[in-house]
Amino acid sequence: MSALSDLQATLDPSRRSWVESANHSTNDFSIQNLPFGIFSDARNSARRAGVAIGDEIVDLDALQAAGLLSVAQERVFAHDTLNDFIALGRDAWRSVRIQLSDLLARDTATLRDDAALRSAVLVRQADAQLHLPLQIPGYSDFYSSKEHATNVGSMFRDPKNALLPNWLEMPIAYNGRASSVVVSGTPVRRPNGQLKLPDQERPVFGACRKLDIELETGFVIGSGNALGEPIACEDAEAHIFGMVLLNDWSARDIQQWEYVPLGPFNAKTFATTISPWIVTLDALEPFRVAQPVQDPQPLAYLRHEGRHAFDISLEVKLRPQSASEASTITRTNFRHMYWTMAQQLAHHTVSGCNTRVGDLVGSGTISGPTADSFGSLLELTWNGKNPLALKEGGTRSFIEDGDELTLAGWCQGDGYRVGFGPCVGEIQPALK
Amino acid sequence: MSALSDLQATLDPSRRSWVESANHSTNDFSIQNLPFGIFSDARNSARRAGVAIGDEIVDLDALQAAGLLSVAQERVFAHDTLNDFIALGRDAWRSVRIQLSDLLARDTATLRDDAALRSAVLVRQADAQLHLPLQIPGYSDFYSSKEHATNVGSMFRDPKNALLPNWLEMPIAYNGRASSVVVSGTPVRRPNGQLKLPDQERPVFGACRKLDIELETGFVIGSGNALGEPIACEDAEAHIFGMVLLNDWSARDIQQWEYVPLGPFNAKTFATTISPWIVTLDALEPFRVAQPVQDPQPLAYLRHEGRHAFDISLEVKLRPQSASEASTITRTNFRHMYWTMAQQLAHHTVSGCNTRVGDLVGSGTISGPTADSFGSLLELTWNGKNPLALKEGGTRSFIEDGDELTLAGWCQGDGYRVGFGPCVGEIQPALK
Repeated sequence: MSALSDLQATLDPSRRSWVESANHSTNDFSIQNLPFGIFSDARNSARRAGVAIGDEIVDLDALQAAGLLSVAQERVFAHDTLNDFIALGRDAWRSVRIQLSDLLARDTATLRDDAALRSAVLVRQADAQLHLPLQIPGYSDFYSSKEHATNVGSMFRDPKNALLPNWLEMPIAYNGRASSVVVSGTPVRRPNGQLKLPDQERPVFGACRKLDIELETGFVIGSGNALGEPIACEDAEAHIFGMVLLNDWSARDIQQWEYVPLGPFNAKTFATTISPWIVTLDALEPFRVAQPVQDPQPLAYLRHEGRHAFDISLEVKLRPQSASEASTITRTNFRHMYWTMAQQLAHHTVSGCNTRVGDLVGSGTISGPTADSFGSLLELTWNGKNPLALKEGGTRSFIEDGDELTLAGWCQGDGYRVGFGPCVGEIQPALK
Repeated sequence: MSALSDLQATLDPSRRSWVESANHSTNDFSIQNLPFGIFSDARNSARRAGVAIGDEIVDLDALQAAGLLSVAQERVFAHDTLNDFIALGRDAWRSVRIQLSDLLARDTATLRDDAALRSAVLVRQADAQLHLPLQIPGYSDFYSSKEHATNVGSMFRDPKNALLPNWLEMPIAYNGRASSVVVSGTPVRRPNGQLKLPDQERPVFGACRKLDIELETGFVIGSGNALGEPIACEDAEAHIFGMVLLNDWSARDIQQWEYVPLGPFNAKTFATTISPWIVTLDALEPFRVAQPVQDPQPLAYLRHEGRHAFDISLEVKLRPQSASEASTITRTNFRHMYWTMAQQLAHHTVSGCNTRVGDLVGSGTISGPTADSFGSLLELTWNGKNPLALKEGGTRSFIEDGDELTLAGWCQGDGYRVGFGPCVGEIQPALK
């Protein structure tokens, strides 16, 4: 078989694993998924690379040590981030995927029938700690949902001219702060900052009163480009290793006062949470769909043939500290995004800006067309005017201390799921 | 002597070096300066740390190998960036400064009288190549010159309300792109991008027509802060390792079309040039002056006692490709900056944003009060309306292909200089 037909076989919807938990149609980590992450556990506190399968993690370093995983670089999975593995290139990612899919397939006895080997290479997710999977040299964030941009423009500018003139011509973006990207589960402290209250002439200093989420995905650069050498739109997807869920925590009141004319800064730099598992673009291939029609037709450097959106269901839950159950506050889909990841990357580099392995590029808030599918509390409550009712009583305009926010995302196949696992953050009170 | 009095002795204006070129009152690299950089040369192509003295470089790795420089970490100067040395902390920076000042002083015979040793540890700057001295985890850029912000506001908004309401309350900033920070001497390619011409309904794609410099300095984080733990204004200077010159190349036409509402992106991400030598805050100490009076008085978290501005002369020269001589296009001074570096760092971290060793923080364009002291061509030519006459004929509204732009900066002491060396970039034509 050729490498491409091997790769195709890893996507076969009928393939099942001897790791039985992976075969439940709502488990994020089917054998079709095989996302990469960095973990440690009580048995071995060293951070190392793993792949999620059902309720387990395959320890890739242990698998390589056992002679069951062939990769060009010795102990590349013993590093505390995935960067060096990713830097090996797409052929290496695909080769590992193909080997794992085979080893984990129901009919492959190698691991299935060897308890000692299984014990050496499998770690239960419940026993593991997941870490930030990347050293992130650069983080940039787009603003590519037409519904989100329209909502924000309607609220803060003019409902009749909600979209700014440049919005339909280019995927708008800003540089984010890479230092404060944290992995799911990391507590997030409510930021302090300058707030401009309508009844006072000067700003006051204090804790953010309008703390919000932004429901986003992010893509991870798998191969960069040299300074001065743009990536063409048609080539862009080949530069992407995979995707994560991303919560672009936002302090709306700080943002509104600080953002002119250079964009958001302190309102966003205090934390950005990503999911621990990176789902490869290869695993997402079966869920490729057509992007929305773009009118006007973009300039030539932003054009690509074919389908470049992905059908990824997304939802956000909010659980107050006192509540036993979380309330789902929005449900939407990544396929609504107006600008594609390929267009984002082409635009990002068209001026000559270089990208590097491990760079994180956010989608921007993903809002759907209906009021229950918006990707931020700002939109869901229309800047606090329409508080959301929670399942166990109480309401929310914005996030309160102790609230736990969880993003989820998955592609639903026929009897299997390619999901991201949760992207969670709990809000701690501001510093006094 | 105590460590502090040793440190004080390194600033003695009467101290002179046996490296005679260091003693010329206009040489940037007096014995009072001792800036750090990364270099290589024909004899040894390995990148390593050095300190500039007159026309020479002291090879710190060779000096440590010769047993003449005591530092806590073996071969820390053999790394290809300064980050690991900087991470050793302020006591280590100061100890190296004190040891070097002593070794290079006119009265110290150790190196002066040992030709073999001198040959092993001194490299002529003319024979060396200078490299980017840092691995830069994060780059952010402020907008802290009142004159610059007023000029830009007058041109593009309203001369009567040139400053936006937030400007006098906080040091405004945005996140920059660390990947495209390059060292002086790196050619810079004119960027392509979307341009919105006044007579056309839709943007066109093409080469930037309004390419500009921004004359800035940058400071380098010497010790970072943990996520969620702000740096107080009074403590901020202790977190700064030193300063560089910084040219924030800007594509004005791309910027004007893209920048609402999230700030500049492609207009700036194609390149930022810094000077190769990092002048320590210790070396700048004698040039400390009072900052401008701030009215209104800033909020408490932005207050500090004492003098926090620095008297650094700055100038920019432009040399067309065909010209033998450069034209000085502006002369100004860092002391004009409204917001201090300490205030910038306090504001940067007040929301909880973490900083890391090697982070680069730009001052923003430094414009003085008079029309010949502005820090960008945008201001100097008032958006092209008043082209500048060049020395050998011709004019400039914005930068043309082949133009070489050179930033210079220095503190003038009594008979000695603490300077940065040139920060140079030549513009190459855009990609077709």
